[in-house]
Amino acid sequence: MLVRLIYASRASGIDGEKLSAIMKASRTHNAAAGITGVLVFSDGIFMQVLEGGRDEVSALYNRIAQSRSHRDVVLLDYEEISERRFAGWSMGQANLSRLNPGVLLKYSERAVLDPYKLGGQAAVALFEELVQTAVIACPGQ
Amino acid sequence: MLVRLIYASRASGIDGEKLSAIMKASRTHNAAAGITGVLVFSDGIFMQVLEGGRDEVSALYNRIAQSRSHRDVVLLDYEEISERRFAGWSMGQANLSRLNPGVLLKYSERAVLDPYKLGGQAAVALFEELVQTAVIACPGQ
Amino acid sequence: MLVRLIYASRASGIDGEKLSAIMKASRTHNAAAGITGVLVFSDGIFMQVLEGGRDEVSALYNRIAQSRSHRDVVLLDYEEISERRFAGWSMGQANLSRLNPGVLLKYSERAVLDPYKLGGQAAVALFEELVQTAVIACPGQ
Amino acid sequence: MLVRLIYASRASGIDGEKLSAIMKASRTHNAAAGITGVLVFSDGIFMQVLEGGRDEVSALYNRIAQSRSHRDVVLLDYEEISERRFAGWSMGQANLSRLNPGVLLKYSERAVLDPYKLGGQAAVALFEELVQTAVIACPGQ
Amino acid sequence: MLVRLIYASRASGIDGEKLSAIMKASRTHNAAAGITGVLVFSDGIFMQVLEGGRDEVSALYNRIAQSRSHRDVVLLDYEEISERRFAGWSMGQANLSRLNPGVLLKYSERAVLDPYKLGGQAAVALFEELVQTAVIACPGQ
Amino acid sequence: MLVRLIYASRASGIDGEKLSAIMKASRTHNAAAGITGVLVFSDGIFMQVLEGGRDEVSALYNRIAQSRSHRDVVLLDYEEISERRFAGWSMGQANLSRLNPGVLLKYSERAVLDPYKLGGQAAVALFEELVQTAVIACPGQ
Amino acid sequence: MLVRLIYASRASGIDGEKLSAIMKASRTHNAAAGITGVLVFSDGIFMQVLEGGRDEVSALYNRIAQSRSHRDVVLLDYEEISERRFAGWSMGQANLSRLNPGVLLKYSERAVLDPYKLGGQAAVALFEELVQTAVIACPGQ
Amino acid sequence: MLVRLIYASRASGIDGEKLSAIMKASRTHNAAAGITGVLVFSDGIFMQVLEGGRDEVSALYNRIAQSRSHRDVVLLDYEEISERRFAGWSMGQANLSRLNPGVLLKYSERAVLDPYKLGGQAAVALFEELVQTAVIACPGQ
Amino acid sequence: MLVRLIYASRASGIDGEKLSAIMKASRTHNAAAGITGVLVFSDGIFMQVLEGGRDEVSALYNRIAQSRSHRDVVLLDYEEISERRFAGWSMGQANLSRLNPGVLLKYSERAVLDPYKLGGQAAVALFEELVQTAVIACPGQ
Amino acid sequence: MLVRLIYASRASGIDGEKLSAIMKASRTHNAAAGITGVLVFSDGIFMQVLEGGRDEVSALYNRIAQSRSHRDVVLLDYEEISERRFAGWSMGQANLSRLNPGVLLKYSERAVLDPYKLGGQAAVALFEELVQTAVIACPGQ
Repeated sequence: MLVRLIYASRASGIDGEKLSAIMKASRTHNAAAGITGVLVFSDGIFMQVLEGGRDEVSALYNRIAQSRSHRDVVLLDYEEISERRFAGWSMGQANLSRLNPGVLLKYSERAVLDPYKLGGQAAVALFEELVQTAVIACPGQ
Repeated sequence: MLVRLIYASRASGIDGEKLSAIMKASRTHNAAAGITGVLVFSDGIFMQVLEGGRDEVSALYNRIAQSRSHRDVVLLDYEEISERRFAGWSMGQANLSRLNPGVLLKYSERAVLDPYKLGGQAAVALFEELVQTAVIACPGQ
Repeated sequence: MLVRLIYASRASGIDGEKLSAIMKASRTHNAAAGITGVLVFSDGIFMQVLEGGRDEVSALYNRIAQSRSHRDVVLLDYEEISERRFAGWSMGQANLSRLNPGVLLKYSERAVLDPYKLGGQAAVALFEELVQTAVIACPGQ
Repeated sequence: MLVRLIYASRASGIDGEKLSAIMKASRTHNAAAGITGVLVFSDGIFMQVLEGGRDEVSALYNRIAQSRSHRDVVLLDYEEISERRFAGWSMGQANLSRLNPGVLLKYSERAVLDPYKLGGQAAVALFEELVQTAVIACPGQ
Repeated sequence: MLVRLIYASRASGIDGEKLSAIMKASRTHNAAAGITGVLVFSDGIFMQVLEGGRDEVSALYNRIAQSRSHRDVVLLDYEEISERRFAGWSMGQANLSRLNPGVLLKYSERAVLDPYKLGGQAAVALFEELVQTAVIACPGQ
Repeated sequence: MLVRLIYASRASGIDGEKLSAIMKASRTHNAAAGITGVLVFSDGIFMQVLEGGRDEVSALYNRIAQSRSHRDVVLLDYEEISERRFAGWSMGQANLSRLNPGVLLKYSERAVLDPYKLGGQAAVALFEELVQTAVIACPGQ
Repeated sequence: MLVRLIYASRASGIDGEKLSAIMKASRTHNAAAGITGVLVFSDGIFMQVLEGGRDEVSALYNRIAQSRSHRDVVLLDYEEISERRFAGWSMGQANLSRLNPGVLLKYSERAVLDPYKLGGQAAVALFEELVQTAVIACPGQ
Repeated sequence: MLVRLIYASRASGIDGEKLSAIMKASRTHNAAAGITGVLVFSDGIFMQVLEGGRDEVSALYNRIAQSRSHRDVVLLDYEEISERRFAGWSMGQANLSRLNPGVLLKYSERAVLDPYKLGGQAAVALFEELVQTAVIACPGQ
Repeated sequence: MLVRLIYASRASGIDGEKLSAIMKASRTHNAAAGITGVLVFSDGIFMQVLEGGRDEVSALYNRIAQSRSHRDVVLLDYEEISERRFAGWSMGQANLSRLNPGVLLKYSERAVLDPYKLGGQAAVALFEELVQTAVIACPGQ
Repeated sequence: MLVRLIYASRASGIDGEKLSAIMKASRTHNAAAGITGVLVFSDGIFMQVLEGGRDEVSALYNRIAQSRSHRDVVLLDYEEISERRFAGWSMGQANLSRLNPGVLLKYSERAVLDPYKLGGQAAVALFEELVQTAVIACPGQ
């Protein structure tokens, strides 16, 4: 059973180097677990979409919820899907600095990433627009 | 929570200079408050669409309803939205003099702007057609 | 409130000159009343679509129903609309002699204009196809 | 082809005696023409629903539009129907004085009969509620 | 054109006596203006639904937004309606103390009235459930 | 924002006494956090539905995912809701021993509780049928 | 493949005795052919609904179309069905003399049976109302 | 009232010369009767779609059902239509020998024309695909 | 994953005694495999609905297709279901001799059980009507 | 009656040579039986879609279920169709080695063919995407 899960969290003690290490490990793990998705990191806030088997996505989300690198982990969206929308990346990373600020404003009250105020449907739409308009980086993939 | 609000009003003691000042102040305020939208001003009648957070849009509308520059303020449309349609302007201004009169006639009984006779759905459709066909001025933006 | 009304009638004592006079007067009146539409006249039968404010369209239809130029006036369609479909003509006139007879056959039992056998939905469809395929004349407009 | 037509008008020189005569003649005519319906008369305003064959309903409406007893005749609703909703009366008459004022308020801005402000859909709904809650008089039927 | 409007506000300097006076005046005014609705007042927070003509409801809401008795006035819902749902009260008052707390919990995160967190659809549903389960008081009506 | 979340897990070192303690603590916590729901425990497997504010439900689920009492925690369903379906219990407990085995069979391949094979929609339907047919115990509530 | 067919025809040289003979033969044939249905005969006009296998219903209709007892045979409705609506009669006969005339008026322009003016959908609805309100005679069945 | 009728039949004593004569007579008759359509003839089997007024199409079908040239006449489809799909031919003739056999296979169990096994919906779809892909011959039209 | 499967077959060398033995064995097996359903046997023809896990239902159907007791095994319906409709019987047996023949006629061309001519949708509807109207025997269950 | 059937199975003692022989025989048989479809074979697993007449497809599936070359035969999808989607091949063979692995991942938990975990709807979608993106081989066709 395929599912899609989106969550938000606040980074806890993450710097650029640590983020790169996390992303690298995540890509290795995800490729093995059949998980795909995209991560956004901006101003200390994570928003990530995960797609894959139900057991694998639940297990990965549970590890994230327990990780010291994440605080205030909140589920934004979770649904059974018949096909993936983000199948192209074992874990892509959206570069918000290259993003037209109007994209964030289109779905948010302010032109900053604040997933804690996003509904699930808007979160999916925002990820789809990020994939179309932002540069998705996959270093080392 | 994002909302869209459209209202109509009659100008009270507004000349071109005062309108410019209002627009300039409005753009500054709106950019700070995350509000976007478009204003139409024609023959002493305002029609404006506002998009943004529910609290901010309500507060702005309440100020307009109390302002001495507006009389007969009437709500035309108000809805919760998952994405903005007029995200491109902190406050655009439609120049009706460049408008094909047929556009007004398409939604109205006469070829003049009379929002007091417009339903909410037609008001949204008219704003969208204005954005596509009229020149939206953003002096100083 | 915008409405669309379609009626059929039989001409009573109308020749080409009289028809031209009627059309000319109709365009002047309609432009003032905010009424738009298209007239078809063929073999002594009128079929006309009127769009505009509810009061104005009702008043115009009532005058037509009393006019000595029209007999057997029958309503084919009447509906509240949020936007006009025939906004481009204060009163266009379809020239059936330039029409592919197949267009009439597509909506009718025979390849002649007989609106007395047309349902309302087919009448709207026929007018839309006339606008697309026939030459709409607007002498003096 | 069956149709339903609803119109509003202002009475012109109608007193109780004349109204009774109109109703009596109307029932005789309608029974012969296969027309059924309900009339509301209140404070000098008529609102009437007519159901029957398209030609017969059009002809009757055209006579009403020309009658000296009616002014400001406005079409509220007109639709092709596959079955009648008001088949029980050759012409019923709703007695508004026995009506709960809340019924008018439910569909109108004020608790008085003002069909000139009613949309077509609300006019049908009001007639159906009148039939259920008001006493429909059919003197002489 | 009938509309329904729901807003929330915080009371500013309101005691029981003042509230009674407000309600009494409101009922007199609303009956004259054709406005109906229900008010909830709990722990210093108002939530009110207003139904009536568009001009009248807008004018009343604008007065409330300017009133010194209300702070933080926020629009929760506004829609054009073809029939009223709260036509029975010129202004009913829901007595929350007689309410099963589960009703609030059904629509809210906590079992207290906090309309500032309610979406428009949930606000309508809550008012309908209040009407069915709470005692609506109409002193002096 | 209200959400509903359903998860399954395997109990890890839970006996009847410990379960009672967990339920008691859960009811105290949930009442304070505005969370409602129902728990099923059978043959070492938990299935639980949680309803409440998004932050509170996410936080509670994250604690469960980290708890030593739960293994193999899998998300079955998560959705934004406009009203709760299980608002009656701060945490009800379904007694499967009083359940007609046909109820489990209706939604499952075998007549035992195996939520790891349930889709989200079937999980919601099963909980609703449990509420209607099983005895929900609320000791100490 | 099951189908339903409705036709209308004018009787040609049919008296009561001949009609009885036709009905009797028809019931014998239909029971053998798996055909069910209802016949209406009034003022020299037949309207009949036939249900059964596609080949059998086509063959029976073709015989009727060639029969000297029927003139002006016109198809009113023909559709593939997944279940019969008139399965109870090998050939029932509706007795219009016991029918409330309002039933005919509900679907027709006049209160007489004139299937030549009925659409297919109204014909099915009329048969269903006949079955519910008229006495269906099955002499000899 | 416009209808579409599709039937199948087996030819009885038809050779190429006779078929040409039938087609020629049919085009003359149909043009006069306002009937349009397409005929397929293959391996002794006819399948034909007829569009036109209800009375005319019924009368033509009844003549075909009685004709000695047709055996086993079976109705495949009959429906009231608001516009014709095969208005271009007084009677076109599809040349199956120029047809891609895959077209027949797409709608049938075998790659031969066997309308006796076609449902009504598939028969319409097959005719539309024939019009798009086969050469429709209209000798003498 | 739950599925429903319906098939038809012709019995091959089955007498009453053998059928009883088959039913008895089938109930034991099905209870163990979580399969439920209903069997109809009439005039040497079986029609059976099976519900359960996808693997179990496929395996059982494959055994039936290979069994010497069944010839001409044809699939009538197969669909993924979220809940069972025939959960009450490990294998019920419908007694057609107690059935109103009209039930068969409602779904079939003739009043006998001939599943080879039934579509999948009609097969499901027939089973549901059998469950409601026939006596379902479960000897030894 | 046309149907589509999809099944999965594990190959039992199949090598390349045997597969070629099976495919060759299958194409001959299918062309004669009016069956079309596509076969996928990868890592010892078959997934095949069959389209054709209901009797023919059932008979072919039953032979496959009994064949020694197939184990663990499971039905994935079965539906009545009005037109085929895979009419182009008497039996095409998808070459997964030329397939973008992302196509499998889009519908599956892992980037390998595992039809035992596919729902029926995803199986149809996967076959359609295979036809569009993989090379379908038809040796000897």
